[in-house]
Amino acid sequence: MIDFIYEVPTKIYFGKDQMGHLGEEIAKFGKKVLITYGGGSVKKIGLFDKIVAELKKYDLEIFEMGGIEPNPRIGSVRKGAQICKDEGIDVILAVGGGSTIDCSKWISAGACVDFDPWEFFVTEAMPEKAVPLVTVLTMAATGSEMNGGGVISNPETNEKLACISPFVKPKVSFLNPELTYTVSRFQTAAGSADILSHLIETYFNPGDSMYMLDSSMEAFMKTVIKYAPVALENPEDYEARANIMWAASWAINGFTRTCQVGGWSCHPMEHELSAFYDITHGLGLAILTPSWLRFCLDEGTLDRYVKFGVNVWGVDPGLPPMEIAEKGIEKTAEFLFETLGLDSSLTAIGIDDTHFAEMANKACKGKFINGYKQFTPADVEKIYRMSL
Amino acid sequence: MIDFIYEVPTKIYFGKDQMGHLGEEIAKFGKKVLITYGGGSVKKIGLFDKIVAELKKYDLEIFEMGGIEPNPRIGSVRKGAQICKDEGIDVILAVGGGSTIDCSKWISAGACVDFDPWEFFVTEAMPEKAVPLVTVLTMAATGSEMNGGGVISNPETNEKLACISPFVKPKVSFLNPELTYTVSRFQTAAGSADILSHLIETYFNPGDSMYMLDSSMEAFMKTVIKYAPVALENPEDYEARANIMWAASWAINGFTRTCQVGGWSCHPMEHELSAFYDITHGLGLAILTPSWLRFCLDEGTLDRYVKFGVNVWGVDPGLPPMEIAEKGIEKTAEFLFETLGLDSSLTAIGIDDTHFAEMANKACKGKFINGYKQFTPADVEKIYRMSL
Repeated sequence: MIDFIYEVPTKIYFGKDQMGHLGEEIAKFGKKVLITYGGGSVKKIGLFDKIVAELKKYDLEIFEMGGIEPNPRIGSVRKGAQICKDEGIDVILAVGGGSTIDCSKWISAGACVDFDPWEFFVTEAMPEKAVPLVTVLTMAATGSEMNGGGVISNPETNEKLACISPFVKPKVSFLNPELTYTVSRFQTAAGSADILSHLIETYFNPGDSMYMLDSSMEAFMKTVIKYAPVALENPEDYEARANIMWAASWAINGFTRTCQVGGWSCHPMEHELSAFYDITHGLGLAILTPSWLRFCLDEGTLDRYVKFGVNVWGVDPGLPPMEIAEKGIEKTAEFLFETLGLDSSLTAIGIDDTHFAEMANKACKGKFINGYKQFTPADVEKIYRMSL
Repeated sequence: MIDFIYEVPTKIYFGKDQMGHLGEEIAKFGKKVLITYGGGSVKKIGLFDKIVAELKKYDLEIFEMGGIEPNPRIGSVRKGAQICKDEGIDVILAVGGGSTIDCSKWISAGACVDFDPWEFFVTEAMPEKAVPLVTVLTMAATGSEMNGGGVISNPETNEKLACISPFVKPKVSFLNPELTYTVSRFQTAAGSADILSHLIETYFNPGDSMYMLDSSMEAFMKTVIKYAPVALENPEDYEARANIMWAASWAINGFTRTCQVGGWSCHPMEHELSAFYDITHGLGLAILTPSWLRFCLDEGTLDRYVKFGVNVWGVDPGLPPMEIAEKGIEKTAEFLFETLGLDSSLTAIGIDDTHFAEMANKACKGKFINGYKQFTPADVEKIYRMSL
């Protein structure tokens, strides 16, 4: 078991009636607020006006930047960072899902440096400070509201890269499950697949695991498995939306990963898919995950698959181990493609093997991915092919 | 489901080789450090010298206060607060278990007020600031290393009272499972009972629960049930000690309780036992818990007992619900009294009914305890009698 540091200082206001605390929390950081958001649905549903009304109670000066893309682009980061510099922004309020929050994190760091923020992603440059970030979450998926990670795309180079820094962690996040009532059926399903993928990538880890964290991950996975179908059936089921929302934060806020030595491999493989084809991240993960699980299964990894099959999917522990493992994978696929109703192959979403070699090479950064197993570009290409 | 605020900012260094970070973390808060500890075992095992050596690397000025009692007394709080005031202490470093940390929390708050710190426990006075607190944990039990609660005894009034404030939360805690290798068999058992009690008191809650948190609590309970016997068998089993230590923090750091409406009732009942008889807290909880569970079981609470029996103790879900519930209680008692080997009755530890009426009245503060069920003093007395 490895040593680790755990630090998750984000303060969370969870529930229906927490918006009254927004102004007081924002005002702690200063007067000038930049509200960031995506395609404008936050305005359509009246959330933006509600937020502005809360901020005005504290005499805050409001700036805004909309139009952050679903796979947020470095151009938006640059634009936001420039607004922060030009206006002397004290605090950023990101209103939206993982894309808006991810973008806002790198705006907050970009505002404090005099170089191009893309350098955070492709050089050794790391933030040493950032404009404080507060978030109002409108979608349960990426967990960005409670961690220091963010993924940004650069369409000029076809790159989609992740970067992590403690400085960009949100100071405060507001999680109101009701705000996810209007999330579409497809995005609810893709978000649930994303949460499950965060947990699966962490659960299948090459190092010694810690029973207490494994059991917690099983609890979070079972939460998604139990409540995603409920939310699809009845989008306004508060209990379902609340459980999914809180599980999403905990799937990737650092708690489950503290004791894990390995990196993730399904995510970098998917990042190439969405960098090349601009697909929804959670959908890409859903399509790759069963193939990825099949590819990594062998006698050496079997024990973990048995634990997964029995504890997460309720497979009969009396069956032969390899059968338990295979049933666990089948049930995962069934959940993603039948219960959640997501497309089950790359072919179904119009992706063929044209760029497989290039994407595989990029995912491996020309060498390999150190995930549950070490993948070469040839391995990655094989998994893409298995997902056709 | 109720709204809640989650905020657990304590930074944790977990593992065998983290002590090298102690000096840098302490130095962030200033130059003058008060090291607090208990009966001196931290000196006997060489831990104190190791800590001093680390602090000296950062030129810190060291003060010390030992002798904090196992059920820490208000006299120690007063003494420590006075040292902080007299010496202008910048940061307190508590080295020990829950007692030393609890006491140090109220020293840290007491140092910042000009009234008697006992007032925090018996009046409306609450801390508005505190001297920063860092901890080095040497025993897994109370979870004090990651929360804002503390329990202090006043032998003059036979009172043992809890108080909670965000200001006294440790800023940083060092959790090295190896430091618990020397914890005695009895204290390991009592500590495990304490952790389990924190989880049981939260799990059995009168309000709507949240599936995701219930499942997490089940995961933490199963961790204690799995590893406490391993640690008793082999006190130097790192995996067992690590799992118990981390589960102890999570049992009571705020995470599991966020969504619960009710208070605890077994703890205030036990506080009277240890206030009157100075017994080990975890032992008192172990003796009371099965009686408490039996007392609260009825048709209205049955569902929760079934969940507990099946998910925590693996009772056959096909049995009649009341039988599952009773088996769950039996298995809890078996674990506490046979597996952990703790005394199973008040009689066995020399406590008779002499003070039952007075203790029951005090536990109810003359009115009632609002826990899983509302208890009158007569109810509390009945549970004491069931535990004879």
